[in-house]
Amino acid sequence: MPQPAAQTQPHPLNSVEIAANADYSPRTLLPLELVMRHIILAFIILSSALASTVVPATPRNVILIIGDGFDDQHVTMGRNYLSGMSGQLGLDTLAFRASVQIETVSDEGQPLYVADSANTATSLATGRMTNIGRIATDIADNDLPSIAERAIEAGWRVGLVTTSSLTDATPASFLAHVSSRSCEGPKEVLGSTYYGIPQPACLSDARDNGGPGSIVEQLVGSGAHVLLGGGDKFMKQQTVDGITVSQLAVNQGFRVISRDTAFDSLAAPQRLLGAFDEETLEVQWQGTDARIGEPVERSWLSHISKYFGSVTEPSPMSCEPNPAYRNTPRLAAMTDLALTHLATDNEQGFFLMIESASIDKQSHKRNPCGSIGEIAQLEESLALARSFASNHPETAIIVTADHAQAAQILPEPTLYANYPIAIYSPGLTARVRTPEGGMMRINYATNNGFSEEHTGANVPLFANDVAAQWLSAFMRQRDVHDAMERFLFRPENH
Amino acid sequence: MPQPAAQTQPHPLNSVEIAANADYSPRTLLPLELVMRHIILAFIILSSALASTVVPATPRNVILIIGDGFDDQHVTMGRNYLSGMSGQLGLDTLAFRASVQIETVSDEGQPLYVADSANTATSLATGRMTNIGRIATDIADNDLPSIAERAIEAGWRVGLVTTSSLTDATPASFLAHVSSRSCEGPKEVLGSTYYGIPQPACLSDARDNGGPGSIVEQLVGSGAHVLLGGGDKFMKQQTVDGITVSQLAVNQGFRVISRDTAFDSLAAPQRLLGAFDEETLEVQWQGTDARIGEPVERSWLSHISKYFGSVTEPSPMSCEPNPAYRNTPRLAAMTDLALTHLATDNEQGFFLMIESASIDKQSHKRNPCGSIGEIAQLEESLALARSFASNHPETAIIVTADHAQAAQILPEPTLYANYPIAIYSPGLTARVRTPEGGMMRINYATNNGFSEEHTGANVPLFANDVAAQWLSAFMRQRDVHDAMERFLFRPENH
Repeated sequence: MPQPAAQTQPHPLNSVEIAANADYSPRTLLPLELVMRHIILAFIILSSALASTVVPATPRNVILIIGDGFDDQHVTMGRNYLSGMSGQLGLDTLAFRASVQIETVSDEGQPLYVADSANTATSLATGRMTNIGRIATDIADNDLPSIAERAIEAGWRVGLVTTSSLTDATPASFLAHVSSRSCEGPKEVLGSTYYGIPQPACLSDARDNGGPGSIVEQLVGSGAHVLLGGGDKFMKQQTVDGITVSQLAVNQGFRVISRDTAFDSLAAPQRLLGAFDEETLEVQWQGTDARIGEPVERSWLSHISKYFGSVTEPSPMSCEPNPAYRNTPRLAAMTDLALTHLATDNEQGFFLMIESASIDKQSHKRNPCGSIGEIAQLEESLALARSFASNHPETAIIVTADHAQAAQILPEPTLYANYPIAIYSPGLTARVRTPEGGMMRINYATNNGFSEEHTGANVPLFANDVAAQWLSAFMRQRDVHDAMERFLFRPENH
Repeated sequence: MPQPAAQTQPHPLNSVEIAANADYSPRTLLPLELVMRHIILAFIILSSALASTVVPATPRNVILIIGDGFDDQHVTMGRNYLSGMSGQLGLDTLAFRASVQIETVSDEGQPLYVADSANTATSLATGRMTNIGRIATDIADNDLPSIAERAIEAGWRVGLVTTSSLTDATPASFLAHVSSRSCEGPKEVLGSTYYGIPQPACLSDARDNGGPGSIVEQLVGSGAHVLLGGGDKFMKQQTVDGITVSQLAVNQGFRVISRDTAFDSLAAPQRLLGAFDEETLEVQWQGTDARIGEPVERSWLSHISKYFGSVTEPSPMSCEPNPAYRNTPRLAAMTDLALTHLATDNEQGFFLMIESASIDKQSHKRNPCGSIGEIAQLEESLALARSFASNHPETAIIVTADHAQAAQILPEPTLYANYPIAIYSPGLTARVRTPEGGMMRINYATNNGFSEEHTGANVPLFANDVAAQWLSAFMRQRDVHDAMERFLFRPENH
């Protein structure tokens, strides 16, 4: 395991954890796999050596905000509700905007046109393309080093903040390497089910088999400085050492906090780990009476032919507080906590990934108010990040999405309202009253199952001035990774 | 009618036509309407006077390319097919990219979240927001002066090139003013039907009633230099003068050309009018056997419950030449012709709007190959525009869409392929083989009618370096108009 070179600024907290990074610890390897591992290890040592030559005069920070599924339909849905048809979101006032190309391949390496959050987060985290479901591993299951790992090795602090489980695909890809996103805990790494469907195991990754462990075990062993989100059910699991993951985290030097912790009372800086819900954090808003997208009600004549009868549209809904949200920590509160503990007494800087996960998760569930409330949370976190950047000049802020999602804004009423038959969506519709007095119709019609599909459009990227200098108008997702690395690890006088 | 001020570069062709611009000719007016007309007229005179103070030392040109319905799903669909999952379109290599906010209101002035091509083209052409279906008129039916009209008045040449009828909403909004997009010809201005549905008349606009006439009559009387597209059926109609619109165009100084004209043989510059098809130009590509989006075929058990039985997906299709396309002029050929006749012997410059109309029209019809072939046409025209700009330094190129559209790229196979019931789209699906060997699944599921709905996302904007200096990362559609005006009409030393 590479040590930071001598000229690297000493970092009080991560030198031990770096040594404890278990990603490349020995296990039973096939000969080819062994060769590949050594090549990758050599690459890491080289890049680490290059990176560690940099000790910036001013702390250098990256804040990467990922809106999961936050494509232009969802951005516009959020804007219409939160700021009005002619209004602007906070992110609309960022100086720079670009489009990001999403890439993924099938297990056979053929191009695919729709991705998932695992392979896209892998691209953002490692600069490499991979197939669906993988966490920072390539199509041949080689581990791909991430920008977060390189940052830790070179003396930067690293934080992951998310409204999903910390073990979910997006945060996982920054600090873990497994063959499948389903391998979240010590149990799941050996196999699990989801809605009754068997999910892939990651047997060679299991610590039972001498591997680096499940996602949660790799996270707590990664040398990260701050890990805040959901996923407490994985923290409670037993490891092969006979202790819980949570205890393992304490042994690794983390202060484990809960939603009862007074965030302001924590002396900074500390290494913090908070898993504030069993899995995904509750969202702040829901539709009236917890309603989501619904089908039209067709009269009996309409069932005989679409040229007969009538349909009744779902009645309008408003967005209102979700009773289950209660004292769930806000994304902004977690962001604030992370910024405090990452930046205090830190002369080198940090890499912070903030995920607003439930834009996507609520779109899967056809719950527009859930998505919109989550976009409001992203906006609050962005405002904090910008406030921080205004006092810390070398702070690059990038907001982007990992992939496009199902929801579409449709005309209310239909463009064909004068047509003499009932025109309606074959999918599920939510008609959301907006604060400015409009009616926003959201359509979910990608499949007939229990959960909507991702879609395949390129996604937006928003950045502040500091980040914009390293970006271009059109980039592949892996180019965004490369730009962040160039910003963070560049020689001092560049 | 304002004349160009004395210091304006004399323009050989448009001084008479400007005087003949009928938009503001007298008709029976209500008192309030009369006052509004005079205010607008005063504004036009003022802006014209300001504009006419500018005679650029270098010809100053705007090339505005509008991809109708060309949102990020359609951009990505085009890229995946034409350049591959990891490839780049020509427009992806433009230096600048932004997002454009779409605005429209109901007849009562309330915010709406999905627009049509009439009100959006009005915003781009005039810098003003209006309600759906209007052509360069505001919600109270006042005419809104357009950038193209101001350009003509100040001595610039103006061209409109489109694959739609020249009278269709997008081109119409740059040089005509009527209360409804349906008022395309002398007949339709008095009322018409579409698929059996009565369409609005524009009785006060009809020349029969002393108005400025239908869209086509206003176009040929506008002082435009080049008008190329479809819509010959409107050119053949009789006017109140007892002559056809085509003859009216000749009387106005146009050389009327057809698809049999050898474009290269036309001495430049001439004022050209070509309507090369009855309405919309045929598209170059179609799906295998002219297939479009199709429903799945459900087994009889599946009709009992979605938990039983199976479905058969539509079989894959390829994109192939559309037999009806034959010798239809390419958008690039029309662009080339327009550039030649706009730029030759022109020391002041031009404003050229190029519309790739059938991205939208074919998406309405659930025909992905039709849309993709049209995107290929847009790309060819853009390449010509860039080539022109490389020899004409003061040429601003902007590519944008007017509104988002229905098509979505979905996973192939579904994300839920392991689920034990058949997962399928409730809408219509086309599975398109791509040249790189992939399978791109396009979903159309916005309604059950004969034509898909527009959608409500903000749309992309792409620009070259010259234009980028006048644009920002996030703009309302009307701001794009304002930026083009500032570029074109700015004082010389700005």
